[in-house]
Amino acid sequence: MPLPVLDFWFDFASTYSYLAAMRIGPLAQKAEVRVRFRPFLLGPIFKAQGWSTSPFNLYPAKGRHMWRDLERSCAELQLAFRRPDPFPQNSLLAARVALVGLDQAWGEEFCLAIFCAQFADGRRIDDTAAISDILAGLKLDPKSALAAAQSDAIKARLRTQTDEAQRLGVFGAPSFTTADGELFWGNDRLEPALRWAKAAANRG
Amino acid sequence: MPLPVLDFWFDFASTYSYLAAMRIGPLAQKAEVRVRFRPFLLGPIFKAQGWSTSPFNLYPAKGRHMWRDLERSCAELQLAFRRPDPFPQNSLLAARVALVGLDQAWGEEFCLAIFCAQFADGRRIDDTAAISDILAGLKLDPKSALAAAQSDAIKARLRTQTDEAQRLGVFGAPSFTTADGELFWGNDRLEPALRWAKAAANRG
Repeated sequence: MPLPVLDFWFDFASTYSYLAAMRIGPLAQKAEVRVRFRPFLLGPIFKAQGWSTSPFNLYPAKGRHMWRDLERSCAELQLAFRRPDPFPQNSLLAARVALVGLDQAWGEEFCLAIFCAQFADGRRIDDTAAISDILAGLKLDPKSALAAAQSDAIKARLRTQTDEAQRLGVFGAPSFTTADGELFWGNDRLEPALRWAKAAANRG
Repeated sequence: MPLPVLDFWFDFASTYSYLAAMRIGPLAQKAEVRVRFRPFLLGPIFKAQGWSTSPFNLYPAKGRHMWRDLERSCAELQLAFRRPDPFPQNSLLAARVALVGLDQAWGEEFCLAIFCAQFADGRRIDDTAAISDILAGLKLDPKSALAAAQSDAIKARLRTQTDEAQRLGVFGAPSFTTADGELFWGNDRLEPALRWAKAAANRG
């Protein structure tokens, strides 16, 4: 029987997506659930809610709590953490490259490398030079990956994927969706989402 | 040695405060932490962020997810759940009565009864008749409790308590604060907040 599937929706600029990305592999393996990485862009979705930037910037008390909470959470999870500057970074190019990689064998590894570069090492992820460095660090050819990322097909695919997220009710990241139509929002919902996907498959 | 203290900040109209209120007693006992119930009003704090009502009403996608998530979470916790109508309810009177009860011996029991009336039974909690019923159900004298709740001293105390929440950085409910100045937001942060309070006391 094929494993149940959980879709993992994230934006590379999203702080709690970093935590979810670092946690999801081992947890999914243990839960016997197959995870599909689905990068998308929060920007258009935030805009539809009337926000011009991250709500963590728009609402300072919420933002202060988030940075401290992230610091505490990373300490508990023994994950490195450095606050990126600027925040949020433009994640468009990274998301396009990720789509290229997810068609090939290196997508998930690239995604984790982007998250670590930004949130563990405090590096930029928003320009060609930064992405090239990260690709080179993974022994990949930056030139061909970046060329593919700028193709019309990949650009269209990222738009489609963002539209799909919005249609599924996604309003923030990370989010998780199941084959039977459930939406779970937030790193804190990773475990319940995996339990749901598994239980739905057993019922199903 | 006295137990470490965790302050539990909640608004009776807050959905995730229901979950936290139902969970906090046994978890705090197990963690050997003393919890102080601190009812306050989200209204003035939301207003300061430019919101005229709950963000779950202002942002429909966020609201849809919250109601479904609450339903799923209650099922996992084996807690009854009925969506209250209207939402949010005016929690002013309930908060004042709670302050009276917390000075006496029946405060926490009253708080849990208010949350259950609203979120397990789908009852109103926003007027004198509703609160009287709940007080009577706890074998308390509604008349004297309500009279005390409308005293200037209690009215002032609720304002002071709401100001204190805001000064501590509280921007939503439930929230938890520790003696050493940490703020944790959300029902999902109850366990980490208890761990922090306990560890800080051991260090201290």
